[in-house]
Amino acid sequence: MWRATILTLFPEMFPGPLGLSLAGDALSRGVWNLETRQIREQGIGRHRAVDDTPAGGGPGMVMRADVLCAALDAAIAADDTRPRLLMSPRGAPLTQARVRALAEGPGALILCARFEGVDERVVALRGLEEISIGDYVLSGGEIAAMALIDACVRLLPGVMGEEASGEEESFENGLLEYPHYTRPRLFEGLEIPPVLLSGDHGAVARWRHEKSLELTRARRPELLAKGGGKR
Amino acid sequence: MWRATILTLFPEMFPGPLGLSLAGDALSRGVWNLETRQIREQGIGRHRAVDDTPAGGGPGMVMRADVLCAALDAAIAADDTRPRLLMSPRGAPLTQARVRALAEGPGALILCARFEGVDERVVALRGLEEISIGDYVLSGGEIAAMALIDACVRLLPGVMGEEASGEEESFENGLLEYPHYTRPRLFEGLEIPPVLLSGDHGAVARWRHEKSLELTRARRPELLAKGGGKR
Repeated sequence: MWRATILTLFPEMFPGPLGLSLAGDALSRGVWNLETRQIREQGIGRHRAVDDTPAGGGPGMVMRADVLCAALDAAIAADDTRPRLLMSPRGAPLTQARVRALAEGPGALILCARFEGVDERVVALRGLEEISIGDYVLSGGEIAAMALIDACVRLLPGVMGEEASGEEESFENGLLEYPHYTRPRLFEGLEIPPVLLSGDHGAVARWRHEKSLELTRARRPELLAKGGGKR
Repeated sequence: MWRATILTLFPEMFPGPLGLSLAGDALSRGVWNLETRQIREQGIGRHRAVDDTPAGGGPGMVMRADVLCAALDAAIAADDTRPRLLMSPRGAPLTQARVRALAEGPGALILCARFEGVDERVVALRGLEEISIGDYVLSGGEIAAMALIDACVRLLPGVMGEEASGEEESFENGLLEYPHYTRPRLFEGLEIPPVLLSGDHGAVARWRHEKSLELTRARRPELLAKGGGKR
């Protein structure tokens, strides 16, 4: 079973959206497992402090290395081989290839930071891999962790209705996905492209590939430069 | 007041993580407003169908243009100037600059798709702007919408403790953020870098800028090529 462990100051945010629909059904069926751990349990003193002011000054608060290391140590069993991730805008951008690799592994342990971030030493001392879900800043790592988990869980065996559903979508072949159409054939003056109604499977496949290429060239040419578009 | 309207098949996912912590406090205080609309209310027939099989064949289901246009029309008042967003991996990658622009506007109307996606015609007919939170595929647009909203809400006036807190972080100056440290000074053999304890504000600022540059050069050189690093 694929296991996700979340270290957070807001365990009540989980499962949240992961408890419904595709991910939620899979959670109910035991395809994956979600454990949340309250970082504050390793907090310091009567107030269970988890943060302190930044060395060198500046706004906000920084999460303490000693508290976070204690929280990680409490969460990680000796035989736990799962990758240890820190959701952070400074991390490596998450890609569909990384999602697929994570989904094929045993799961993930994910540290969700708040405030200005974490004391840098926890990253080095506990071998955390910093992962970013995109080039913007969130108020905390929780929604980023949900995005990562949702992306992984849908790829687990038996989660999507048809195994094939994951293969023709954006990024799996280095391209953006082709446009979709469904009934009605004519809507507000716009028709479904005739080739899609032709019954000619080869022509449909060629049209879709061409549209994928066009769309990627127009919107994300850098994906083509990375070798996308190979069939 | 900044207003978010979400069109979704899973309104019960909201506010979810947006109901807690920074975004949740701001929601309680009326700094922003969240409205969810069930797309299925515009569904077709006794079963309120919202999707149909893809024209041209293939796995999965496509959300119908007529249903989605009706749902959008019901959600948008004549004087509503908010951008109309469709969360989609085929969209323009979300950036901190776009987040800031959205946060400075009146809010956002966000269509969250499920299944294989939406009939392409709804995008053209209702002028939707496709936005992607990253190069991976989610099971639906809801968590993506949460990420976008969380990123915007934290920038609204009065949401972060200190206005300054948003200015020195990742992407605001085209660089990744410098590393943070806090007490204890020595932890598991690792010290806080002495310059941060020197009390020399100029030296601290120079060190941080240098570390930001180093980190960006090592991890995201393409950000520097885009002009990052200017002070």
